[in-house]
Amino acid sequence: MEPQKKLINSVDSCVDEALYGLVRASEGLSLLKGHRVVIRSDLDNLRGKVALLSGGGSGHEPAHGGYVGAGMLSAAVAGGVFASPPPASILAAILCLHNAGAAGVLLIVKNYTGDRLNFGLAAEQARNHGITVDMVIVADDCAFDRPSKAGRRGLCGTVLIHKLAGALAEEGCPLDQIVLKMTEVLKRIGTLGVGLSPCSVPGCLPSFDLPPGDMELGLVVETQDRTLPDFNQSHLPLKSGDSVVVCVNNLGALSCLEMGVVTRAAIICLENQGVVVARVMSGSFMTSLEMAGVSLTLVRANQETLRLFDARTTALAWPHLSNVCVTGCRYISDPPAMSTRPQDDSYSEGPLSHVMRKTLERVCFTLLEKQEELNSLDRAAGDGDCGNTHAQAARAIQEWLQDHRVPGCPGKLLSVLAGLVQEKMGGSSGALYSLFLTAAAGHVTEEQSSAAAWASAIHAGTEAMRRYGGADPGDRTMLDALCPAVDELMNLSTTPPGGQMAVLQAAVTKATLGAEGTCNLTAQAGRASYIAAERLTLPDPGAVAVAATLRAVLEVLEGQK
Amino acid sequence: MEPQKKLINSVDSCVDEALYGLVRASEGLSLLKGHRVVIRSDLDNLRGKVALLSGGGSGHEPAHGGYVGAGMLSAAVAGGVFASPPPASILAAILCLHNAGAAGVLLIVKNYTGDRLNFGLAAEQARNHGITVDMVIVADDCAFDRPSKAGRRGLCGTVLIHKLAGALAEEGCPLDQIVLKMTEVLKRIGTLGVGLSPCSVPGCLPSFDLPPGDMELGLVVETQDRTLPDFNQSHLPLKSGDSVVVCVNNLGALSCLEMGVVTRAAIICLENQGVVVARVMSGSFMTSLEMAGVSLTLVRANQETLRLFDARTTALAWPHLSNVCVTGCRYISDPPAMSTRPQDDSYSEGPLSHVMRKTLERVCFTLLEKQEELNSLDRAAGDGDCGNTHAQAARAIQEWLQDHRVPGCPGKLLSVLAGLVQEKMGGSSGALYSLFLTAAAGHVTEEQSSAAAWASAIHAGTEAMRRYGGADPGDRTMLDALCPAVDELMNLSTTPPGGQMAVLQAAVTKATLGAEGTCNLTAQAGRASYIAAERLTLPDPGAVAVAATLRAVLEVLEGQK
Repeated sequence: MEPQKKLINSVDSCVDEALYGLVRASEGLSLLKGHRVVIRSDLDNLRGKVALLSGGGSGHEPAHGGYVGAGMLSAAVAGGVFASPPPASILAAILCLHNAGAAGVLLIVKNYTGDRLNFGLAAEQARNHGITVDMVIVADDCAFDRPSKAGRRGLCGTVLIHKLAGALAEEGCPLDQIVLKMTEVLKRIGTLGVGLSPCSVPGCLPSFDLPPGDMELGLVVETQDRTLPDFNQSHLPLKSGDSVVVCVNNLGALSCLEMGVVTRAAIICLENQGVVVARVMSGSFMTSLEMAGVSLTLVRANQETLRLFDARTTALAWPHLSNVCVTGCRYISDPPAMSTRPQDDSYSEGPLSHVMRKTLERVCFTLLEKQEELNSLDRAAGDGDCGNTHAQAARAIQEWLQDHRVPGCPGKLLSVLAGLVQEKMGGSSGALYSLFLTAAAGHVTEEQSSAAAWASAIHAGTEAMRRYGGADPGDRTMLDALCPAVDELMNLSTTPPGGQMAVLQAAVTKATLGAEGTCNLTAQAGRASYIAAERLTLPDPGAVAVAATLRAVLEVLEGQK
Repeated sequence: MEPQKKLINSVDSCVDEALYGLVRASEGLSLLKGHRVVIRSDLDNLRGKVALLSGGGSGHEPAHGGYVGAGMLSAAVAGGVFASPPPASILAAILCLHNAGAAGVLLIVKNYTGDRLNFGLAAEQARNHGITVDMVIVADDCAFDRPSKAGRRGLCGTVLIHKLAGALAEEGCPLDQIVLKMTEVLKRIGTLGVGLSPCSVPGCLPSFDLPPGDMELGLVVETQDRTLPDFNQSHLPLKSGDSVVVCVNNLGALSCLEMGVVTRAAIICLENQGVVVARVMSGSFMTSLEMAGVSLTLVRANQETLRLFDARTTALAWPHLSNVCVTGCRYISDPPAMSTRPQDDSYSEGPLSHVMRKTLERVCFTLLEKQEELNSLDRAAGDGDCGNTHAQAARAIQEWLQDHRVPGCPGKLLSVLAGLVQEKMGGSSGALYSLFLTAAAGHVTEEQSSAAAWASAIHAGTEAMRRYGGADPGDRTMLDALCPAVDELMNLSTTPPGGQMAVLQAAVTKATLGAEGTCNLTAQAGRASYIAAERLTLPDPGAVAVAATLRAVLEVLEGQK
């Protein structure tokens, strides 16, 4: 097993560098010179209020430095990775807060022997300096059925104690009252964790190794099913009608996607058992380096808990949170009243319906006829399915023609075709043709269906393809057939009716030449751009299909004359 | 290679479940029924303002749903994991925003072909519904020297566009102006990423596999050194004096500790090159599932950029941020003026100095004499170094006695000893003895050094050990010798001077009996608690040391009579 790759400069410096990064990125935080202590810069604001100090081993970021700020901690002391901070630094922090005029200092300590002893030692030393110090010990772990003498570990519940005690201190609550209230709250907090992978201390091997396995399926549900009984048996009695604050905590490397899944499971599991989910926080609040896993902390909440939870804080790592009860909150919106499927609207036939039907039939016939030729061209440049893709579209249109009238409004027809192509053709070609048809649709109506209108519709469609597809003429795509044709068609706006067919013929000729010319081009977009240029000696199938389609249209219109 | 373990219920449902989790955990967000669309619940507030819609494949959480809120996005559309969202859902979202009375809809799209086509298609369909829609395409990736035709990818810079455009929309800026301003901003944004490990789509194998290696050392520095030249060459020209907003983005599984290290490196590297770091955001803003890595986004910032960056938003995933320029901000506090080392203070000898020196000498002699006996007892229950630990303390005190006067104030002496023991004895024993001495120190002074005062000092020290160490009598620790002795010593407060020595003798006898009795106890605390009870047949070495220490004190005091 190799040490985990880490983005650090050195094992020795990583804790100090991380604290520097935190403090520089935050307003209102300072480092206490010579110590691993993050402390509020605005110490003047502590005068006459209780100051809050927490801390512990590093590797649990953003705990605890991220919770320093108005309304939460006054300072945080860091030890080495997973190591308790030295008493001298704890004492230095206490003295700083005392010197700032704080009305006593509350130490919030996680229940680990090293932390208890080192914070305890600093507390006793501070008392010998005449400073009023008290301590609450957080032991919220629910993982064991029966606690050993060492007691439950302090986990993410600590962050909630930072918040609730911090809000009380900000309100001016005296030290003994805060200790009393937190002692009560601590009886109502429980945390359960699930790890999927180990973490490793910088420079060391992973702390444990889980065998690979298919743990993912059902694990969330399973964990959640176990949660309430476990909380009940071991630590935190919950019953229907109780109100809770829920903290879903990423232990380090769980993806944000999974965090959402777990958050949902937590809410649903609690609500299914009649528990009112008053608040939810979901994110990385107390990590264990890069451990992939999650912990779930529940606090049974009363009105005061929620008031303190909702109170303002400037601490960097405290998230934006709702102050509205989650359970009972509406979270589904109705979809838009306006129809999103123009092709479903009712419509009637018109004078153009007949010729448009004939044109479509010819286009479909042509594309099906060319299916193998297009596939063959595509085998040299792509995945060989260009003919199939076009044939799918052609068959979808044929089927639609069988049991639908063709609307008299050309724009309506183009919208219908856009929907068909989007749904049935698939792939980038489907999206591009659909784009073309959709962008063109707005330019031709029953009233506005002159040759010039058609030209501007085709121009608009082509421009949409270029804009969203990101390709240009010369990139060896269907645009190499389409764009020269469009350039020619734009002449229709100034051409008298008698000359229009000649313009159309010229446009189709240009499309054909453009398609043939793609054999000399280097692919810049689409799948063919991944193929070496010297292997691309045949024309681009997409361009060939466009030219064939335009020719089919021309043939029908010539026949109409 | 095995699929990555994931905390999901099923591959098919994970995207929808994650969206549910996000929306339920946030105030003011809704899911659009039948679509993967997260939308503001307070659509009324959009009336007359430009609405902002973004989205893309899932797996990049909190992007984009986490950025929906006042001052950022109006809605976000999610596709499957790493898959572009369907045009029908994009259109549904646009229609919703339009129906709410928005003054046009801006689509913020990352530069991936699928996203461009699908958002483009929905935009064209919306236009056919008569809705004013525009699009900005974010392409902030600086990884390639020369962009291919597909162009740079849209990365974490997208989140900054959400923020800046969102603030403009909130101010009432019209759509065309927002597009113009964002087009300008996009020329000033660049992003570089570093991945240490691959990520894997739920149900699939990891996307790539990096060989293990010692990449961690120096990688940050190396990356940072490359950053500015790369930004300059490929995309984002920066020069000394320029002001930038920096976004350090966790790609998924980087530990928060490493994030702090990288944030520091980014700030220092930029400042070393004369660039003014105006703002820093550091966290998980646009992830790639559980990829361990980081991306760095820089925006060249002017006054307007900063005003929009600082503007208020309710979006859940936008962090608490400083609105003060990072460069030039003070971030080091002076340590407390008050001395943290009471033993360094000046002091004078007094009437008690002589007997206290004699007592200490005897205690040290005794502990050194018993070194091997204590080690031997400890070998059966711990790591066999209990005698060594006590001997270290004894030698430290002996050395101190050689070149220091013993203060006349007993409390002062106990504080000095606490410091020595804390520094030289080490381990839990050092912390516990130091705690004992520190807590005792406040109870005996030059004026208050009666037998009763000493008794209450020893009581206070013992209580501190119990409180912070978490053990009780009966747990097979030094308390089994100390507590019975303290119980006896408490009689000193009511004993006339003539009877005091008898109390002392009784206390030492009780300590000795207590120590011997530990051989019948099951260890509940300390290292011995990890050893099977039936193997612990000898007394606890810590308790034996306490009894021996008390006996040594008694012997000196008896000799003084």
